Amino acid sequence: MLVLSSPSGAGKTTLSRRLLEKDANVVMSVSATTRPKRPNEVEGRDYFFHSDVQFAAMVKAGELLEHAVVFGHQYGTPKKPVQTALAAGRDVLFDIDWQGTQQLRQQVRDDVVTIFVLPPSRGELERRLRARAQDSAEVVARRMAKADDEISHWAEYDYVIVNQDFDRAERQVETILRAERLKRARQPGIPGFVETLMHHD
Amino acid sequence: MLVLSSPSGAGKTTLSRRLLEKDANVVMSVSATTRPKRPNEVEGRDYFFHSDVQFAAMVKAGELLEHAVVFGHQYGTPKKPVQTALAAGRDVLFDIDWQGTQQLRQQVRDDVVTIFVLPPSRGELERRLRARAQDSAEVVARRMAKADDEISHWAEYDYVIVNQDFDRAERQVETILRAERLKRARQPGIPGFVETLMHHD
Repeated sequence: MLVLSSPSGAGKTTLSRRLLEKDANVVMSVSATTRPKRPNEVEGRDYFFHSDVQFAAMVKAGELLEHAVVFGHQYGTPKKPVQTALAAGRDVLFDIDWQGTQQLRQQVRDDVVTIFVLPPSRGELERRLRARAQDSAEVVARRMAKADDEISHWAEYDYVIVNQDFDRAERQVETILRAERLKRARQPGIPGFVETLMHHD
Repeated sequence: MLVLSSPSGAGKTTLSRRLLEKDANVVMSVSATTRPKRPNEVEGRDYFFHSDVQFAAMVKAGELLEHAVVFGHQYGTPKKPVQTALAAGRDVLFDIDWQGTQQLRQQVRDDVVTIFVLPPSRGELERRLRARAQDSAEVVARRMAKADDEISHWAEYDYVIVNQDFDRAERQVETILRAERLKRARQPGIPGFVETLMHHD
């Protein structure tokens, strides 16, 4: 499980899409939410959109790995697709915030790798947030406050990447993913292989 | 601090040399030893060669980060050059065995990354050990026993690489090194940078 967190506007979504295109073993965890669908969003690709009642039922049934309220809307990670993908040997990418990351860590201690993506500068962060045409000035201001809140949690992550340029940041995420796959505990074939190496006579 | 351990014959020395050539920020920790110099070895490059008396004096003076006896000879890591290199922001590569790795971990808990290099097969390991012309049959047999001893400690390492081909294994070591440099705790500039990102008004 690979978590990418960042303030919105730091480029995390673009990085996630690129990683999915490049690495066939990676699948995205699609979050559930109660917030309204934006014009460019697709059900099941960007989010699973639910009513408050539906979402509350999923929480109650224990169907979410983590969930949190952001700007009055619920967000959460459906458990089933993640379990299915992990069981099939896939790496699962999570685009979640610090609250979700904390909960995920509590649920599955060992096997979470977390990356925090920082924007290259305050000015660039503001510019990117303003560039989203569908957001009003008030929404932008709220997002800046949320960005500060998110950034304040950077020190809870395993890795930190400064997204100065997308190609470089993408290579860095790939490097982290490839290195983490070489971790002893993530190579289930090694104990058996070591058996074949050892001298028994 | 990056530790490469492996049974001799798994290719660790070749991997170390390649990494040193390719990555200018990496320096090698040269071990001290009381074993006799081999014909092709160079003082200060392969080892610092010392008498038993000299070595014992270094241990007593606390000048070694770790030391252990292998085949009746002392091996150890001089502390001073490591501290100097780390203070200069260099990465230090250690070609040491499991005993040295355990001691190093105890001395410097946080900042050690350990990689275990496995040979591709038992047959290949034997072939490589026999190919060293200067070693007698008895020495080869002892080395096979020592190889088993070494391999039995693979599970104490952070990463495991199977050295099936040198180019691939080298890329894997580089990938690990590059990813580890992206760890939050190894980027001393980030806290100050985050200060410049946060909104204060």
